Amino acid sequence: MGSPRQLKLGAIIHGVGHGWGDWRHPDAVADASVNFRFYRQQAQLAEAGRFDFLFIADSLHIHEKSCPHYLNRFEPLTILSALATVTEHIGLVGTATVSYTEPFNLARQFASLDHISGGRAGWNVVTSWLSGTADNFGRPEHAPHDLRYRIAREHLNVVKGLWDSWEDDAFVRDKASGKFFDPDRLHALNHQGEFFSVKGPLNIARSPQGQPVIFQAGSSEEGRNFAAQNADAIFVNPESFDEALAYYRDIKTRTAQYGRDPQKLSILPGIRPIVGRDPAEVERRYRQAVDLVSIEDALVALGRPFNDHDFSRYPLDEPFPELGDIGRDSQQGESNHIKRVAREEGLSLREAALRFSRPNRAFVGTPEQIADTLQHWFEKGAADGFTIGSLLPDSLQSFTELVVPVLQARGLLRREYAGRTLRDNLGLDVPVNRYSARRLA
Amino acid sequence: MGSPRQLKLGAIIHGVGHGWGDWRHPDAVADASVNFRFYRQQAQLAEAGRFDFLFIADSLHIHEKSCPHYLNRFEPLTILSALATVTEHIGLVGTATVSYTEPFNLARQFASLDHISGGRAGWNVVTSWLSGTADNFGRPEHAPHDLRYRIAREHLNVVKGLWDSWEDDAFVRDKASGKFFDPDRLHALNHQGEFFSVKGPLNIARSPQGQPVIFQAGSSEEGRNFAAQNADAIFVNPESFDEALAYYRDIKTRTAQYGRDPQKLSILPGIRPIVGRDPAEVERRYRQAVDLVSIEDALVALGRPFNDHDFSRYPLDEPFPELGDIGRDSQQGESNHIKRVAREEGLSLREAALRFSRPNRAFVGTPEQIADTLQHWFEKGAADGFTIGSLLPDSLQSFTELVVPVLQARGLLRREYAGRTLRDNLGLDVPVNRYSARRLA
Repeated sequence: MGSPRQLKLGAIIHGVGHGWGDWRHPDAVADASVNFRFYRQQAQLAEAGRFDFLFIADSLHIHEKSCPHYLNRFEPLTILSALATVTEHIGLVGTATVSYTEPFNLARQFASLDHISGGRAGWNVVTSWLSGTADNFGRPEHAPHDLRYRIAREHLNVVKGLWDSWEDDAFVRDKASGKFFDPDRLHALNHQGEFFSVKGPLNIARSPQGQPVIFQAGSSEEGRNFAAQNADAIFVNPESFDEALAYYRDIKTRTAQYGRDPQKLSILPGIRPIVGRDPAEVERRYRQAVDLVSIEDALVALGRPFNDHDFSRYPLDEPFPELGDIGRDSQQGESNHIKRVAREEGLSLREAALRFSRPNRAFVGTPEQIADTLQHWFEKGAADGFTIGSLLPDSLQSFTELVVPVLQARGLLRREYAGRTLRDNLGLDVPVNRYSARRLA
Repeated sequence: MGSPRQLKLGAIIHGVGHGWGDWRHPDAVADASVNFRFYRQQAQLAEAGRFDFLFIADSLHIHEKSCPHYLNRFEPLTILSALATVTEHIGLVGTATVSYTEPFNLARQFASLDHISGGRAGWNVVTSWLSGTADNFGRPEHAPHDLRYRIAREHLNVVKGLWDSWEDDAFVRDKASGKFFDPDRLHALNHQGEFFSVKGPLNIARSPQGQPVIFQAGSSEEGRNFAAQNADAIFVNPESFDEALAYYRDIKTRTAQYGRDPQKLSILPGIRPIVGRDPAEVERRYRQAVDLVSIEDALVALGRPFNDHDFSRYPLDEPFPELGDIGRDSQQGESNHIKRVAREEGLSLREAALRFSRPNRAFVGTPEQIADTLQHWFEKGAADGFTIGSLLPDSLQSFTELVVPVLQARGLLRREYAGRTLRDNLGLDVPVNRYSARRLA
């Protein structure tokens, strides 16, 4: 519409926190991960800050050393449905795995959320990468990395096909004639593939967004291609501007190679900013966040992308251990990244563990400093926006109260929502129903 | 607590209606099945009427002749989660099938709903009985009736086991010591069974009710045993007082044989009352409901418990056709019932179809007459309460405004909610966690 390009913002609502020790902060709500009041308050804060969407992450396998938030938390589709009724504009995005869900059930729940919320649903498509998850679903073994992405492609295609079961104008509802729907606008999918066989049709109308928005977080080679081909938005966790810039260029190039408009795929680095009103407050808050990270917890966190590898068995102050293939069939992109950084920078195990658990100083500062950094990444082509995570209990509140007004004053963020749906927020078109397209062709 | 025994009431919220033609009523909300405002209004009506719970039914297979409500409706767990935030006391009960869900995902979503709602979740355990459903889930064939109940037993046991993964006092959350939970209070299920293999533990705390409430609707021999053994409440659809009485006695006897307290299993006949302020209004409203039922729709509805059998191929005014085994592996109890009634009463096909689609005159009357009938069934041991379905767009409203006050005046229904949870509403104890019980034994 000729309006200047603006930042896209997501808010991760993550209960007691990403870090193993976050819940110990004096102000932390220690039962936040199963506390609906906490989720409602965070969601309403994010909406007051004119965020495009909130995001609920997920996982399906726990053990005694899991992050406190993983141990005991709301399931994404249920909490998103609840949050739909206490918000009006903000998108509602949740993780669900293709590895252990039926496409029919998943398509239906996201479509139902899209109807309930008036068009605000988004699905973060993941493949499960902790091998222990298979034990909760009666699978003899964990699928290797490449196979997981083959499953993901087919699963997503089935879900998208089911979402098109009914054309947009299928339901006539003419009481006089008794015609409830037009049978010519109803389509069975009749999918028979390598991993799934799903006839359809889905038992819910095409939703307000046509199809819920697709999010992804691929950093491996396979993951990048999958995202470039399929995603409307990508979560990524670069450590530096240069890394973000390289990732951004790579993904946008791949997107174009798949014949898609690169502007229609938003790349949203995940950051956990620490904001203070002045340098002294910044430093005090930074120290608080650093103090929440113990070396023991940092080692457990480091092990996670390596399929919960036990790093406590290695000497702390010697060079980062040789790991061979460990991590290849787990979170491959992330584990490769850690190995590379540790090698290139000659880090000890202790240094590596703390490096990846402690706050990134690039996003620590006063409101103006944070806004400068976001603007720089955005305008120099390293990000289309950001996903904001929390390091301290009041992180989202301080970002919303202090940084958001600066971004708005600079014209980088909306002051009011313009539309009603998540697609409206993100500037995405409603996809044309595949059967309607054929009819019109 | 010495209080007199009171009726238990559930409200079925069923979108555009049970009947194929209900949506054509002039006052019907024709998109009700995907209209959140409609669901919120019905839920709040039921809560104003001090109902124990609302109920969302479900199915997973549609075709061109399916009931309008089946074609396009909210998925139960998402709509229940949304309704949790706009109600305070009423129970939130939904159908989910054991046939096409993973126990881990299902246990988690109901536990999450129980946390979100402060202890108001209930699961209506069903086995899928339309053979076409298998085609939506990549299954080569529909499981026969007896096998379905073996699967149901094991699935339910796994879900209940997962719900006990964490003992009630597992989460210590002591910030000073850093102890988030007590590892002795965390338990893997390690289930290896005939149909499921699930290690656990579940990644959500034991919920406010300990375990969500179990509903069931078994009328076959297998179904009755399953319900008597496992259910906290049963849905059933008797046509007459005598039929209800016989069912009630049979189930309570079986319940006692399984070593359970029969008072802890509520039998709740489903009724669709038509209320009018005076006999003329009663008759006018009854005619409206009758007029919504065409013989064509009644034949399709009749076919449903027989695996969507096509009854339009038989002559309408000859004796009810011989069906042999048709229906045995579908909704067995219901299809047997229809066959028996048709044979015993010598009904033609037309008569049988209309008999099972038209309103049951036993529940048509003035508020006092309806209350008399409910009281009679309740006091004579044919019901512990009722599940109220709608025949006309304002059915729930008229029941709540006209019949509820009469029941309250007679001391048969609460005037205010006494507790906070669905178990409180139904007078059910919180089950003791199996591991806590062993420790205390």
